Amino acid sequence: MFKAIVGASTLQDALDSVSVLVDECKIRLNEGELAIRAVDPANVGMVDLALDTAAFESYTADDGVIGVNLSKLEDFIGMASGDQLVELELDEETRKLNIQMDGLSSTLALIDPDSIRQEPDIPDLDLAAEIMLEGAQLDRGIKAADMVSDHVRLRVASDTEAYHIEAEGDTDDVDFRLDTDDLIALTAGEADSLFSLDYLKDMNKAIPKDAEVTIELGQEFPVKVHYGIAEGYGEITYMLAPRIQSD
Amino acid sequence: MFKAIVGASTLQDALDSVSVLVDECKIRLNEGELAIRAVDPANVGMVDLALDTAAFESYTADDGVIGVNLSKLEDFIGMASGDQLVELELDEETRKLNIQMDGLSSTLALIDPDSIRQEPDIPDLDLAAEIMLEGAQLDRGIKAADMVSDHVRLRVASDTEAYHIEAEGDTDDVDFRLDTDDLIALTAGEADSLFSLDYLKDMNKAIPKDAEVTIELGQEFPVKVHYGIAEGYGEITYMLAPRIQSD
Amino acid sequence: MFKAIVGASTLQDALDSVSVLVDECKIRLNEGELAIRAVDPANVGMVDLALDTAAFESYTADDGVIGVNLSKLEDFIGMASGDQLVELELDEETRKLNIQMDGLSSTLALIDPDSIRQEPDIPDLDLAAEIMLEGAQLDRGIKAADMVSDHVRLRVASDTEAYHIEAEGDTDDVDFRLDTDDLIALTAGEADSLFSLDYLKDMNKAIPKDAEVTIELGQEFPVKVHYGIAEGYGEITYMLAPRIQSD
Repeated sequence: MFKAIVGASTLQDALDSVSVLVDECKIRLNEGELAIRAVDPANVGMVDLALDTAAFESYTADDGVIGVNLSKLEDFIGMASGDQLVELELDEETRKLNIQMDGLSSTLALIDPDSIRQEPDIPDLDLAAEIMLEGAQLDRGIKAADMVSDHVRLRVASDTEAYHIEAEGDTDDVDFRLDTDDLIALTAGEADSLFSLDYLKDMNKAIPKDAEVTIELGQEFPVKVHYGIAEGYGEITYMLAPRIQSD
Repeated sequence: MFKAIVGASTLQDALDSVSVLVDECKIRLNEGELAIRAVDPANVGMVDLALDTAAFESYTADDGVIGVNLSKLEDFIGMASGDQLVELELDEETRKLNIQMDGLSSTLALIDPDSIRQEPDIPDLDLAAEIMLEGAQLDRGIKAADMVSDHVRLRVASDTEAYHIEAEGDTDDVDFRLDTDDLIALTAGEADSLFSLDYLKDMNKAIPKDAEVTIELGQEFPVKVHYGIAEGYGEITYMLAPRIQSD
Repeated sequence: MFKAIVGASTLQDALDSVSVLVDECKIRLNEGELAIRAVDPANVGMVDLALDTAAFESYTADDGVIGVNLSKLEDFIGMASGDQLVELELDEETRKLNIQMDGLSSTLALIDPDSIRQEPDIPDLDLAAEIMLEGAQLDRGIKAADMVSDHVRLRVASDTEAYHIEAEGDTDDVDFRLDTDDLIALTAGEADSLFSLDYLKDMNKAIPKDAEVTIELGQEFPVKVHYGIAEGYGEITYMLAPRIQSD
């Protein structure tokens, strides 16, 4: 069984982080947390979401899995205004999710979890550099890179202790450089990898501009991007596979 | 002859209520009021608009009819800012409407009224239930229904004295319920009818969110939706034919 | 060589005035000013821009010419917020323009100036009437004309000392009239010319609503429209060829 009450914006932030990568996903309704893990069809970008029961007004679940169409669920939740409470209840018999909010009762048909792409294993990586910055800074770097290329190079210059978001187009280049003064924190280390900009743009859409974002970066290795939601009771981790650097 | 001065926003509100249903209409320039009655090409939705002379700064007319292209007329009126006055004058000879506002004189060619669909008779119905609610509540119910279906069921539950805006999709359902606390007034009665959502959405576009809207509802009968504009000197009534309920 | 520091919005206003007419242009980097002259492919609309060195925080140039893709350059400058400073530096060797702003370094490849349409000669015309008005008034007149036609007649009625922006559609007309009270200044004279509305709409896009715009107008002659930017240290002049009046 599953029954929970949660603020609409908490749920929206959580679902947004997943829906930028996939259309459908499995939601794990565990005793201690609600969790989602998903990977995009090309197996390039992954998301791992954990929302602690403390992020809910009330939460009861015994370990189960449901499959949902994310855009439909987001539409339904979107009928609530930001701080309004939403009640979710699983109807085990009909395999539908009942969604209640101030006057509005909705019933969302669930999807057979077995029909949804398998949840990925999030590899445990030891990445040399860790950059902590505001969501707004990441956004600015991604926008700049997008003007000239569809790839972006993330790099830590260990000599100057600066973080670079760089892009090389056919004729034009950009280099967005954040010094330790511009960053919340930096653990320098050998770190230089190339990524598809499309994926980073999608992930960036979901990251609040005022979030404290942590980027773990290595040498031609996947990047980990994580940030907290719901006053720290929720944690979202993206992982993105690198592109091979041609030079 | 016809000559009138009126606030731009009053005229816009009046014309908007008609243009959501039809592109062209006849405007009756009567001594006591300006009136429009129109029905959509499929004969499903009707609008009846009456704007009392008291809604005008000045008004002189001897009973006449003109035909107008609504989007053109709305474009012209739209050149005025909200509370600016607009002067309308009919040139009988050229069959054109002169529209004057602060510095701008426009001349709009009229349409032969005989070429415009006949004005409908608005049937006098005795509908069992009457619901009075804020435009914003109606808007919310229609938005919710629109997520799952292209039909909507309006219903009064006479036992609980609640008004329901319901929709049943292929897999998902919504039920937007307004209790007497949420309503301005309710006269309960046997009332349950199904309508095309497209028409209600069009009507809803014209209804101000802060309007007091009255809905008269019966058992598989047309619905009447009316509200006032121009501080009560204007009244708009929509009538919408029901769809046959299949269950 | 060329090296300059300038407020982002000053540069944006200057470039916008040119990019509404052409996609690429030559920029003359003279000792005393930065200057652009361009004509649209159909040879109907011209723009002449001069930005005095006093509009810059710092400016060093020895007479040179660079060719730029305007939308790319505007994208790059657009990464700065309004009052942020932008540093431009020409790399003579690579023929690239280095653009620096708070953390972001971009390199824009230049275009061979010889591949860009020749700069037009701006004819020195003696136009009988001069109208000075707010950008917002011109905008209103152009919007009104656009409702009924794709041509617009600019006219000074020397008897009434009024300036008219008029348009005649197939069935509808508009006449936007500004009396001396509505204008900043008027030098009346025989002036009545017809213009393509598309060009005026493009020019109007670049003209700030609060700019003091001067219109020099003659009898079936080109019109000159000019206004200042950068607190008077920049001047933009449009010239637009007339259409032949058919009546």
